[in-house]
Amino acid sequence: MSDLSIIAFISIFTAGLTVSFGALGPALGEGRAAATALSAIAQQPDAAPTLSRTLFVSLAMIESTAIYCFVVAMILIFANPFWNAALEAATQGAGG
Amino acid sequence: MSDLSIIAFISIFTAGLTVSFGALGPALGEGRAAATALSAIAQQPDAAPTLSRTLFVSLAMIESTAIYCFVVAMILIFANPFWNAALEAATQGAGG
Amino acid sequence: MSDLSIIAFISIFTAGLTVSFGALGPALGEGRAAATALSAIAQQPDAAPTLSRTLFVSLAMIESTAIYCFVVAMILIFANPFWNAALEAATQGAGG
Amino acid sequence: MSDLSIIAFISIFTAGLTVSFGALGPALGEGRAAATALSAIAQQPDAAPTLSRTLFVSLAMIESTAIYCFVVAMILIFANPFWNAALEAATQGAGG
Amino acid sequence: MSDLSIIAFISIFTAGLTVSFGALGPALGEGRAAATALSAIAQQPDAAPTLSRTLFVSLAMIESTAIYCFVVAMILIFANPFWNAALEAATQGAGG
Amino acid sequence: MSDLSIIAFISIFTAGLTVSFGALGPALGEGRAAATALSAIAQQPDAAPTLSRTLFVSLAMIESTAIYCFVVAMILIFANPFWNAALEAATQGAGG
Amino acid sequence: MSDLSIIAFISIFTAGLTVSFGALGPALGEGRAAATALSAIAQQPDAAPTLSRTLFVSLAMIESTAIYCFVVAMILIFANPFWNAALEAATQGAGG
Amino acid sequence: MSDLSIIAFISIFTAGLTVSFGALGPALGEGRAAATALSAIAQQPDAAPTLSRTLFVSLAMIESTAIYCFVVAMILIFANPFWNAALEAATQGAGG
Amino acid sequence: MSDLSIIAFISIFTAGLTVSFGALGPALGEGRAAATALSAIAQQPDAAPTLSRTLFVSLAMIESTAIYCFVVAMILIFANPFWNAALEAATQGAGG
Amino acid sequence: MSDLSIIAFISIFTAGLTVSFGALGPALGEGRAAATALSAIAQQPDAAPTLSRTLFVSLAMIESTAIYCFVVAMILIFANPFWNAALEAATQGAGG
Amino acid sequence: MSDLSIIAFISIFTAGLTVSFGALGPALGEGRAAATALSAIAQQPDAAPTLSRTLFVSLAMIESTAIYCFVVAMILIFANPFWNAALEAATQGAGG
Amino acid sequence: MSDLSIIAFISIFTAGLTVSFGALGPALGEGRAAATALSAIAQQPDAAPTLSRTLFVSLAMIESTAIYCFVVAMILIFANPFWNAALEAATQGAGG
Amino acid sequence: MSDLSIIAFISIFTAGLTVSFGALGPALGEGRAAATALSAIAQQPDAAPTLSRTLFVSLAMIESTAIYCFVVAMILIFANPFWNAALEAATQGAGG
Amino acid sequence: MSDLSIIAFISIFTAGLTVSFGALGPALGEGRAAATALSAIAQQPDAAPTLSRTLFVSLAMIESTAIYCFVVAMILIFANPFWNAALEAATQGAGG
Repeated sequence: MSDLSIIAFISIFTAGLTVSFGALGPALGEGRAAATALSAIAQQPDAAPTLSRTLFVSLAMIESTAIYCFVVAMILIFANPFWNAALEAATQGAGG
Repeated sequence: MSDLSIIAFISIFTAGLTVSFGALGPALGEGRAAATALSAIAQQPDAAPTLSRTLFVSLAMIESTAIYCFVVAMILIFANPFWNAALEAATQGAGG
Repeated sequence: MSDLSIIAFISIFTAGLTVSFGALGPALGEGRAAATALSAIAQQPDAAPTLSRTLFVSLAMIESTAIYCFVVAMILIFANPFWNAALEAATQGAGG
Repeated sequence: MSDLSIIAFISIFTAGLTVSFGALGPALGEGRAAATALSAIAQQPDAAPTLSRTLFVSLAMIESTAIYCFVVAMILIFANPFWNAALEAATQGAGG
Repeated sequence: MSDLSIIAFISIFTAGLTVSFGALGPALGEGRAAATALSAIAQQPDAAPTLSRTLFVSLAMIESTAIYCFVVAMILIFANPFWNAALEAATQGAGG
Repeated sequence: MSDLSIIAFISIFTAGLTVSFGALGPALGEGRAAATALSAIAQQPDAAPTLSRTLFVSLAMIESTAIYCFVVAMILIFANPFWNAALEAATQGAGG
Repeated sequence: MSDLSIIAFISIFTAGLTVSFGALGPALGEGRAAATALSAIAQQPDAAPTLSRTLFVSLAMIESTAIYCFVVAMILIFANPFWNAALEAATQGAGG
Repeated sequence: MSDLSIIAFISIFTAGLTVSFGALGPALGEGRAAATALSAIAQQPDAAPTLSRTLFVSLAMIESTAIYCFVVAMILIFANPFWNAALEAATQGAGG
Repeated sequence: MSDLSIIAFISIFTAGLTVSFGALGPALGEGRAAATALSAIAQQPDAAPTLSRTLFVSLAMIESTAIYCFVVAMILIFANPFWNAALEAATQGAGG
Repeated sequence: MSDLSIIAFISIFTAGLTVSFGALGPALGEGRAAATALSAIAQQPDAAPTLSRTLFVSLAMIESTAIYCFVVAMILIFANPFWNAALEAATQGAGG
Repeated sequence: MSDLSIIAFISIFTAGLTVSFGALGPALGEGRAAATALSAIAQQPDAAPTLSRTLFVSLAMIESTAIYCFVVAMILIFANPFWNAALEAATQGAGG
Repeated sequence: MSDLSIIAFISIFTAGLTVSFGALGPALGEGRAAATALSAIAQQPDAAPTLSRTLFVSLAMIESTAIYCFVVAMILIFANPFWNAALEAATQGAGG
Repeated sequence: MSDLSIIAFISIFTAGLTVSFGALGPALGEGRAAATALSAIAQQPDAAPTLSRTLFVSLAMIESTAIYCFVVAMILIFANPFWNAALEAATQGAGG
Repeated sequence: MSDLSIIAFISIFTAGLTVSFGALGPALGEGRAAATALSAIAQQPDAAPTLSRTLFVSLAMIESTAIYCFVVAMILIFANPFWNAALEAATQGAGG
């Protein structure tokens, strides 16, 4: 069962690494964008609707890179093709 | 029981790593956004409601990346599919 | 008893690492938010109540990421499911 | 089956690494661009349409580097030529 | 007695690491908050009471993350559940 | 088949590394260029066409370094001369 | 006597590491707070008493994190429970 | 065939490393140059032709260092003298 | 005599590491405090006595963290309890 | 043939490393020089010829360090004296 | 004589490391203090005596941390108690 | 011939490392000096001859550190005394 | 002769490391001090003698930390007490 | 001849490392000093002789740390006392 554990080992480690490193950049980028939006609203309150709209589009764009990472982590944990292939092979080996 | 311990080992380590690294970016990003919100309110007290609303939406957006990490850590500790598969295999091995 | 020590080893190490790394970001972020709040109050003393309220909400939001880490560390030390499973297995092995 | 696990191991690890590191730069770059766009709109509200258009073109350009990484990660997980070759070889070895 | 030393080894190392890394962030964050408080008092001496109160609340909030680390280090040195379990097991082994 | 797996291993790892590290610099550089373009348009709306043209030429120039990396990663995955040579050698070895 | 040396080894190393890393943050934080206090006194000499008092409270607060580290290092060198337990076990082993 | 795989291994890894690290500096440098060009055009629209010409010469100069890296990577993949020598030696060894 | 050399080895290394890392933070912090004191005196020569006094108190406070490190290093070299215990044990072993 | 592969291995790796690290500094330095030249031309269009000349001399000077690296990499790939000596020795060994 | 060489090895390495790392912080800190002193004298030439005196006291304070490191390095090279103990033990072993 | 390959290995690696790391500092330093020269010329066109002369002397001085590195790399590749001694020894060993 | 080579090995490595790391801080610190001196002279040419004198005292103070490192390196190469002891022991061993 | 190669190995590596790391600090420091000299001349052309003289003294002082490193590297390559001792010992061993 050694092959299975290797794949489980690396899938668990990579899933965690992916989602935690993937949170670093977006969180900093969104923090920066939000900070500027706030000081921009304070400077030009009349443009608040335009600024909010632009901010939300930008946040969504930045968030998308965090979501790529989350998706990859979820795939690695719950729909990992390598794990499925290894499980199937182990079953065949046991059934053979 | 060696395979089980490897999976337990990496799940514990990854859960901790994920949640601690995943806290770094959001905390810094939220600190930045909050700091700007405060100086913006001081600069334009009349716009405080708009600024607060924008701040809370942004904080929620940034917090979401920290929550992805927390969710992954919780999955790894309490609902780890690899651990379940290994436990089941160990039980079958013992029962066989 | 080797499997038990491996799990104890990694749980202790991860708990410490999680809580110490998890303190870095929030402490810096809160320091930044608090610093701006102070200079904002100095700049606009009349808005002190609004600023304080916004500051405390933000600090609570940032603190939450540190608390996620503390919670994970406490779970790893006092309510570790992998340790419980290993202890149980060791007891069964000894009783068998 | 050892060769297969090595390829599975490195494919999983590389996919996660690629998508998480690949999210760092674009997220920071987009955060910077969006931040400047927001302060630019606040400074010159009349130019908002031009600024928005330029922002979205730039975000798309920056996002493209994140998408290269996502594409490579997806290829490594779901359409990995090395894995396919190894699987085929393993099948031939078993059938031979 | 080898298992006991492994647990002692990692508990000592983790306790030191936790408390020293956990001191880094809060010390920097508190330094920043205190610095701003001082320049704010110099700028607006009349608001000194409000500023001091806000400063002390913030310092307490930031200090709390350092205290989490100190608590975890103390638990690892003086109330370590893994060490207790290992000691008990060692005693049983010797008494058996 | 050991030689083949080594080449597959390093090709997969290098492809991911190349494209993810190669995305870091261009994303940051493009973010900077775009940010300045936006603040420049806000400062001098009349020069928007000239600024846009210069921006797009610059973005293309910077993007080219990301594309070099993507091209090398694609070559390593789909047109790797070392893999082809190794495959051919393995076939000859099997056919001989 | 091998177990005793492992514990001595790690206690010595951790004590040094703890106190030296633990000095980094507080020294920088105190330097920052003191620097701002000095420039604040120069800017507003009349507020010197208030500023000094606030500075000393802040320095004490920051110094506390360095003292946590010093305390842990002293515990590890002079009142190490793991060392005591190991010494006792070694004595029992020799007396048995 | 072990010598051949070592050379293939290191050629693949070095090619990827070279082109990805080699993209970092030029991308940042070009981003900086382009950013300044844009703000310079906004500041002095009349000098746009001179600025564009100087910008393009500079971009070409900076791009040259990225191209050195790309050339070395291409040589390592497609015209590697060490690989050719090793292939020739392997053929002679097989033919001898 | 192997146990003695291990303790000597780590005591020497830790003493050097402690005092050199422990010098980094205080030196930078004191440099910063002294720099601000000098510019503050230049800005407000009449407040020189107050500034000097505050500077010296701050320098003493910061220096204390360097002195903690120096004390720990001296204890490790000249009054190391682990070394004494090991020497005693070695003497007993030789005399027994 | 083992000695030959070691030399080939390190020559390939060093050539790539040299040219990619060697591109980092010059690219950043040239980016900085070019950026300042552009803002200088915008500020003083009449001095453009003097500025251009000084810029090109400086770029050539900076580029020279990148070229040293490229030259060393080319020597290591195509005119490596150690490789030649090793090849000669291998031929003599085979011919002897 | 193996124990003696281990102690010599680590003493040499630690002495060099201590003095070189210990030079980093003080040199930067003194550079900063000196720089500010120079600009302060230029700004307020009448206060030169006070500034010089404060500068020299500060430089002496900062230099002290470098001297701690130098002292520890000299102790490790010329008055190392562990080396003396090991030499003595080696002599006794040879004389016994 | 093993000794010869070790010396060849390290000479190749060190030559590349030396020239590439040695290019980093001078390139950045020259970039900074050139950048300031350009903005100084723009600010004071009448002093261009003095500025150019000072710039070229400075660039030569900075370039000298890059040339030290290049010289050491060339010595290691083409006039390595250790390689010559090893070659001579190998020849004597073969001739003896 | 193995003990001698270990001591030679570490003495050579430490000497180089000490002098090169020890050059980093002082060079940066002196660069900073000299830079400020130059801008101070430009700002207040009448105070040039005072500034020069203060600069040279400061440079000497900073240079002293580089000289500590150089002295330690020279001691390690030309007056290494551990090497002398080892040589003496080797001679006695050969003469005995 | 193994001892000789170890000494050759480390001497080559250390010489390269010393000169390349030792070039980093001085190059940056000189770049900074030269940059300030240039902007100072532009600001105060009448003080050019004083500024140039101060600049050259400072550059010489900074360059001295680079020269320490170059000297150590040259000693390690061409006048290495450890190499000479090892050569002599090897000759005696061969002649004995």
